[in-house]
Amino acid sequence: KKTKEKDFTYSNRGMTLEEDLNETNQYYLASGKAVIHKKPTPVQIVQVDYPKRSAAVIKEAYFKQASTTDYNGVYKGRYIDFEAKETRFKTSFPLQNFHQHQIEHIRQVLNQSGIAFVILRFSKIEEVYLLEGKTLLFFWERMENGGRKSITFTEVAQYGHKISLGFQPRIDYIKIIDQLYHLN
Amino acid sequence: KKTKEKDFTYSNRGMTLEEDLNETNQYYLASGKAVIHKKPTPVQIVQVDYPKRSAAVIKEAYFKQASTTDYNGVYKGRYIDFEAKETRFKTSFPLQNFHQHQIEHIRQVLNQSGIAFVILRFSKIEEVYLLEGKTLLFFWERMENGGRKSITFTEVAQYGHKISLGFQPRIDYIKIIDQLYHLN
Ligand SMILES: [Mg+2]
Ligand SMILES: [Mg+2]
Repeated sequence: KKTKEKDFTYSNRGMTLEEDLNETNQYYLASGKAVIHKKPTPVQIVQVDYPKRSAAVIKEAYFKQASTTDYNGVYKGRYIDFEAKETRFKTSFPLQNFHQHQIEHIRQVLNQSGIAFVILRFSKIEEVYLLEGKTLLFFWERMENGGRKSITFTEVAQYGHKISLGFQPRIDYIKIIDQLYHLN
Repeated sequence: KKTKEKDFTYSNRGMTLEEDLNETNQYYLASGKAVIHKKPTPVQIVQVDYPKRSAAVIKEAYFKQASTTDYNGVYKGRYIDFEAKETRFKTSFPLQNFHQHQIEHIRQVLNQSGIAFVILRFSKIEEVYLLEGKTLLFFWERMENGGRKSITFTEVAQYGHKISLGFQPRIDYIKIIDQLYHLN
């Protein structure tokens, strides 16, 4: 893997987008900035053993499709909701990364005046963008109407908002939300 | 079980509080009233098998303590967060039903101007109350300061808000939120 060569860059720490966001959210929580958590992975539990004198053991379970996005919480009283996805493609972000029910959930949140967005990471170039829910819906509908099945990188850069990457917080998406919703 | 005798009452349908709330939330979602979901049960996955030509099977996993409350979502742009608990006691609601981290989460949500509360069901008398987060914190702190380890039924009835039980929605807690926060 080529990433081994360049030593002090962002991607080289081997952090996934999810790990970076979890650390960001922990920073927000510890500093009293926002309360945002990742939801647990939904699991269909089939068989559980209850051994004497020790914890219950799940012996058979299956991964379930989530019915919502992965992250949600509260910032200055407002409801925050997002999904995070990364791609190794350089020139476009495939829309197949999203499931129909996630799109539906984003639509429902927007209808309820919640703040919904996606965080897209282009892992090869180490760039992270916030794309507002309404913008994602626009590109999703373009696909449904027979258009391209992806958002080009140029479109993400133009209609999305680049998030600066730092040490703490790593992916300061609240800064973008402040600007977009005039919350600060 | 005594409940077998009285046939057409609420408890007799054998629904748990969680089932009633899930149906309530589904009604809110389908009618466009609010977007509120129960979070998946957090599970620590230890071993997964990937059989050829079929779905991944979780072979060993353990229940994890949740770091937040069970339900959250958005109503009219506002962040909604609650935990639901039932007791078979008639004269008080034991505070040991709550975990320290749930109390901490409720405190964090309130500090972030979110709407946090608990829904308490006295299953023997089939009464359901909404108790605001700040009120729960008051009784929690009373306990921490050496006071009683429960909230008396009289206190719940006085400082909480009784939720009327219906067919659809079953537990119309949004109605109470409307009144408390003047959202309608
Ligand atoms: Mg996901
Ligand atoms: Mg619970």
